[in-house]
Amino acid sequence: MISKLIDSIKKKGTPIVVGLDPTLDNIPKKIKDKAIAENGETLEAAASAVIEYNKAIVDAVCDLVPAVKPQIAMYEQFGIPGLQAFSETVRYCKEKGLIVIGDIKRNDIGSSSKAYATAHIGKVKVGNTALPAFDEDFCTVNPYLGADGIQPFIDACNEFDRGIFVLVKTSNPSSGEFQDRVLHDEDSTLYEAVGFKVKEWAKLSMDGTYSNVGAVVGATYPKMGEILRRIMPKSFILVPGYGAQGGTGKDLKPFFNSDGLGAIINSSRGIIAAYKNEKYAKYGEDGFAEASRAAVLDMKEDIRTNI
Amino acid sequence: MISKLIDSIKKKGTPIVVGLDPTLDNIPKKIKDKAIAENGETLEAAASAVIEYNKAIVDAVCDLVPAVKPQIAMYEQFGIPGLQAFSETVRYCKEKGLIVIGDIKRNDIGSSSKAYATAHIGKVKVGNTALPAFDEDFCTVNPYLGADGIQPFIDACNEFDRGIFVLVKTSNPSSGEFQDRVLHDEDSTLYEAVGFKVKEWAKLSMDGTYSNVGAVVGATYPKMGEILRRIMPKSFILVPGYGAQGGTGKDLKPFFNSDGLGAIINSSRGIIAAYKNEKYAKYGEDGFAEASRAAVLDMKEDIRTNI
Repeated sequence: MISKLIDSIKKKGTPIVVGLDPTLDNIPKKIKDKAIAENGETLEAAASAVIEYNKAIVDAVCDLVPAVKPQIAMYEQFGIPGLQAFSETVRYCKEKGLIVIGDIKRNDIGSSSKAYATAHIGKVKVGNTALPAFDEDFCTVNPYLGADGIQPFIDACNEFDRGIFVLVKTSNPSSGEFQDRVLHDEDSTLYEAVGFKVKEWAKLSMDGTYSNVGAVVGATYPKMGEILRRIMPKSFILVPGYGAQGGTGKDLKPFFNSDGLGAIINSSRGIIAAYKNEKYAKYGEDGFAEASRAAVLDMKEDIRTNI
Repeated sequence: MISKLIDSIKKKGTPIVVGLDPTLDNIPKKIKDKAIAENGETLEAAASAVIEYNKAIVDAVCDLVPAVKPQIAMYEQFGIPGLQAFSETVRYCKEKGLIVIGDIKRNDIGSSSKAYATAHIGKVKVGNTALPAFDEDFCTVNPYLGADGIQPFIDACNEFDRGIFVLVKTSNPSSGEFQDRVLHDEDSTLYEAVGFKVKEWAKLSMDGTYSNVGAVVGATYPKMGEILRRIMPKSFILVPGYGAQGGTGKDLKPFFNSDGLGAIINSSRGIIAAYKNEKYAKYGEDGFAEASRAAVLDMKEDIRTNI
């Protein structure tokens, strides 16, 4: 699957991932009012608003970017209707030729991790029929439980040609609380130790020059990104934290390899809620999708001039 | 919420949690065949079989135990119908007077973690209406991202009287890969460092003598359980790994405080698939629910004689 992502990055000419993380606060009032008028103040109304909002943004940016990353938490908060909206978003994005990275950060002991891998990048057997559930192309995975929890995802990568990004150094302010702890036996940090494991896991699912096993490293920590880039040369790095979380174009260079590949940069609020940013105010609330397109074009230029 | 759990443990006279982790392999053939006859080989058939199986087990054990722990991965693999079965299971168990621990192991950066907390132990605002989504009493949480990812869950504990169990030392064989690493600055392990954080977080949501913030520590690591019991005196420990994963009654004592409280012991396969165990073979496949009841009674005795 990583080779498909690379092809798409080359075709679109940019490594941007649009984070589809809808919140009711960011959805234009007109869309919310219509959904509530039709469904009442229900989870179904929220899900309906989310789908309309997502589709408009996807329509406006799908020719520009290789991939999208829906954050499942934002859908899960609306219960079953919300997860139906997640599923519909995945389907719609794939129909538009986009690669879908499910930002699910799942993990568990082996048997349960296998069920998560099946749910998101595999197929489940009912009788003699193998059925996909959420059917993303990639998903994100938490490493806290060690190899037992990762192996089922790697198996699914190999069986169904999919990919994963393992959390290594996350973009949030408190990520250092555990991830930056220095380990006694090797004088490296926990995030480096996880990086070394990702390097090993990457070998188990190579697809061309890169591996289907990638890593998540926040744009907010570019120096650590530089270290991790060297530790995991065959892994793509999914880089969140650009834009609303504080990462800038200048922070991104360390995440790339010398071949110009090796990283994809996510922006969520900075793109999907661009219309709320003074810079794109001229589009107004009705022009939220056009504002998203303008924000993608500006981000593309910011990356081009800095990498 | 922890005080409600304690009341229920005292009333039922045992700290057993039944893990509702249905797999199609463990569901009796008759139930599966009926579901497939009615729905074809679909996700709906799987979900229908799961609900029938769960309800029979819950009916058979609900007078004996204080709580159940559905593992959401096992439902998520069946997509939307599977998650509807999860939701229906939560509702049914609460109706039967059981406390429900959603084993979801979610976590993310602050804004997304807030959405997960909302989804599972909170309420989401649509217009002026606050709506529950999955509505568990407790849920499990992964600590890898640090305090940012935990605080929204603690806030939900306080706002909605709920509880969480933070993964500290998990029951799986590879849990030591990262969790057992010794940290340079304090000569303690990562799991101990997480335990010390849980001790701090516990202070933020006290409910009587215990905190709504508990911890997960595997029965498979009783010596580490003893250490962690001392580190986190106000936190209940949710102990998985008893039975099918190898933990025995003798391993459980270190997880309890001197007041006889402080731990709840989960068994999943050992109870819900007891009919497959030679010991309970006399119940046959048709008697799977009675076999589960017998397994709970035996587990209750094993705990009573060892604690």
